[in-house]
Amino acid sequence: MDVDRGTARDIEGFSAPGRVAEPGEGISMEELALAARNHGMPLEALRYELTPAGLHYVLVHYDIPAAEAADWRLTVGGRVRTPLRLDVVALRSYPSVTHRVTMECAGNGRARLTPRPVSQPWLVEAVGTAEWTGVPLRVLLEEAGVEPDAVEAVLTGADHGVERGVEQDYRRSLPLPVATGDDPEVLVAYAMNGAPLPPQHGHPVRLVVPGWYGMAHVKWLRDISLTSTPFTGFQQSVAYRYKQSADDPGEPVTHIAPRALMIPPGFPDFMTRARAVRPGRIGLEGRAWSGHAPVVRVEVSTDDGRTWHDAALAAPEGHPWAWRHWHTAWTATPGNHVLVARATDGDGRTQPVEQPWNRGGFGNNLVQRVPVLCVPEAG
Amino acid sequence: MDVDRGTARDIEGFSAPGRVAEPGEGISMEELALAARNHGMPLEALRYELTPAGLHYVLVHYDIPAAEAADWRLTVGGRVRTPLRLDVVALRSYPSVTHRVTMECAGNGRARLTPRPVSQPWLVEAVGTAEWTGVPLRVLLEEAGVEPDAVEAVLTGADHGVERGVEQDYRRSLPLPVATGDDPEVLVAYAMNGAPLPPQHGHPVRLVVPGWYGMAHVKWLRDISLTSTPFTGFQQSVAYRYKQSADDPGEPVTHIAPRALMIPPGFPDFMTRARAVRPGRIGLEGRAWSGHAPVVRVEVSTDDGRTWHDAALAAPEGHPWAWRHWHTAWTATPGNHVLVARATDGDGRTQPVEQPWNRGGFGNNLVQRVPVLCVPEAG
Repeated sequence: MDVDRGTARDIEGFSAPGRVAEPGEGISMEELALAARNHGMPLEALRYELTPAGLHYVLVHYDIPAAEAADWRLTVGGRVRTPLRLDVVALRSYPSVTHRVTMECAGNGRARLTPRPVSQPWLVEAVGTAEWTGVPLRVLLEEAGVEPDAVEAVLTGADHGVERGVEQDYRRSLPLPVATGDDPEVLVAYAMNGAPLPPQHGHPVRLVVPGWYGMAHVKWLRDISLTSTPFTGFQQSVAYRYKQSADDPGEPVTHIAPRALMIPPGFPDFMTRARAVRPGRIGLEGRAWSGHAPVVRVEVSTDDGRTWHDAALAAPEGHPWAWRHWHTAWTATPGNHVLVARATDGDGRTQPVEQPWNRGGFGNNLVQRVPVLCVPEAG
Repeated sequence: MDVDRGTARDIEGFSAPGRVAEPGEGISMEELALAARNHGMPLEALRYELTPAGLHYVLVHYDIPAAEAADWRLTVGGRVRTPLRLDVVALRSYPSVTHRVTMECAGNGRARLTPRPVSQPWLVEAVGTAEWTGVPLRVLLEEAGVEPDAVEAVLTGADHGVERGVEQDYRRSLPLPVATGDDPEVLVAYAMNGAPLPPQHGHPVRLVVPGWYGMAHVKWLRDISLTSTPFTGFQQSVAYRYKQSADDPGEPVTHIAPRALMIPPGFPDFMTRARAVRPGRIGLEGRAWSGHAPVVRVEVSTDDGRTWHDAALAAPEGHPWAWRHWHTAWTATPGNHVLVARATDGDGRTQPVEQPWNRGGFGNNLVQRVPVLCVPEAG
């Protein structure tokens, strides 16, 4: 398949090459423009098992397309025996399945790296969990009939823009075994938490790939093409790779690394977001997830990692791709404290206390540190 | 009334005084933390007359409270004859009214000021329009019976935090004539676009003050108290004032200044957000609003303000507090262009081309400049 065919071109002086920030360089206006458009999940929203509309993280590479469900067509083609062309009514006519999925941006935590890769400047909040309803991708591919030489499914969204000089529709691929697998079961989804997809989450149709970072969940999905050679488009071969330098081909970003997050206890200062608590017993809680295997352990430290104890984990509820609630208690005493939580998944993967670095700022899962100041009630 | 009674105290070294950024100082991590939590409306969402859930701008001073509708009580007290205590069922039993209201953060545009006031770093996107349903505040005050010496209504939200050393629940006041007026009609709202309020928009009850900047629309509203002296709490006397220096008492921030915004045409670069269009006729459109009087004119320049022409304004539809759609056309030729739009309201107020400065970064309505690069289609 011709890479980004028909739209690829360079626009000189319009699109800058990737870079890392200089030592001490503040967040740029360009990074701020991305932060003002896209948004994370305020961490107090960890209280909700299903993230309410508007609190789930959103990252849009280009513009949110002006997509109407009534006009939408999803095509399935390439190395298939019978190409398909489906409207939303046709998609809804298939038996539907619903999966509860925790989704996280591959760049979560990027803005805390040193040096800082210049891109969407996430701190730690690029996550959310929703119930996605749709048709398994494998059902559509079975109906179209996969040719024996097919190796990948290339997924094309309707959002159009330029990235590092390459004009493109957002496009990613999945290996055929993932696209046709049932563990996880990849969805062509048309509903989020029981309602039609909001515009910013891919209305009317998106891909959902449980356990994978957000870049795989192509929004505004308009075409699925099976190919006989691996896809080498921008979002596959250039972006979303673990690289140490600009010319390192790197390794592809795929599954979500384990992470636990805590609801910062107490109350904040508006500007610094510093936290204050009162002395006494305080419930600590949060959620933890991994895209490799369910989380089996969350440890908490209330002394900045010197000592740890196990938090109580909520029972699995048959949602292997969703986060698990955890809780523990802490007796706060006046003074400064640093709270830390760390998840371990069923594959034995856990979180680092010092973050390895990569040039794109992907796959970070450094333990969250929550400094709190314990102060007595006003007299 | 005792200012911020029962919660006011200083926490040394926790909460920094207000400041403006040094020349050339990049956006700080603290400003970024606010930008990652709160979010603007991506400008392509100007295509929607009613902003869909999750795209409307949100600013939360402290944390989103864990508020449940079933447990909520709104009290009405102070200088009234009969204090009220209402649950959400009781609020819903009053005849309801619905108003379409454009809401904008008073700090919109702050991050483009020089020097930059350090706070929530909005560029231009802190706006949204929704239909809010609830009970007119004057109906509740009539039922409670306003004492003759009452001069203000003090509105208290449930969000709790510290700001510049002052621990507080978020609290603002309205002059009694505004609180009991019917032009605009202030609402105690429990629904947004026909659904219960989302958590981040004040679930289950908030104030809506049509025409005023966002700081007046107290979210998670739990108490309304009439007072016989003007309220002098933090959000009234310290924050949200037009000041030139830290010790200037300043003037209060109230109504929204006129502004027109344009949907940036064409398609963006991911990182720079620079815009590209193809040569030929291009529709330009957007929306314009003012909190003083309906917008009566939108002018557009396609040559960075050297010449202007009038855009077509959509007919008023009986929503005097909502934005008006505007559109015009432009024939793009290869090269660089700067598009500008400027609104004028029925009171004759318009938008500056050079922004006056104030220390809080409030009430900015500098004209929006949209640089675009017109490039031919790839050959």
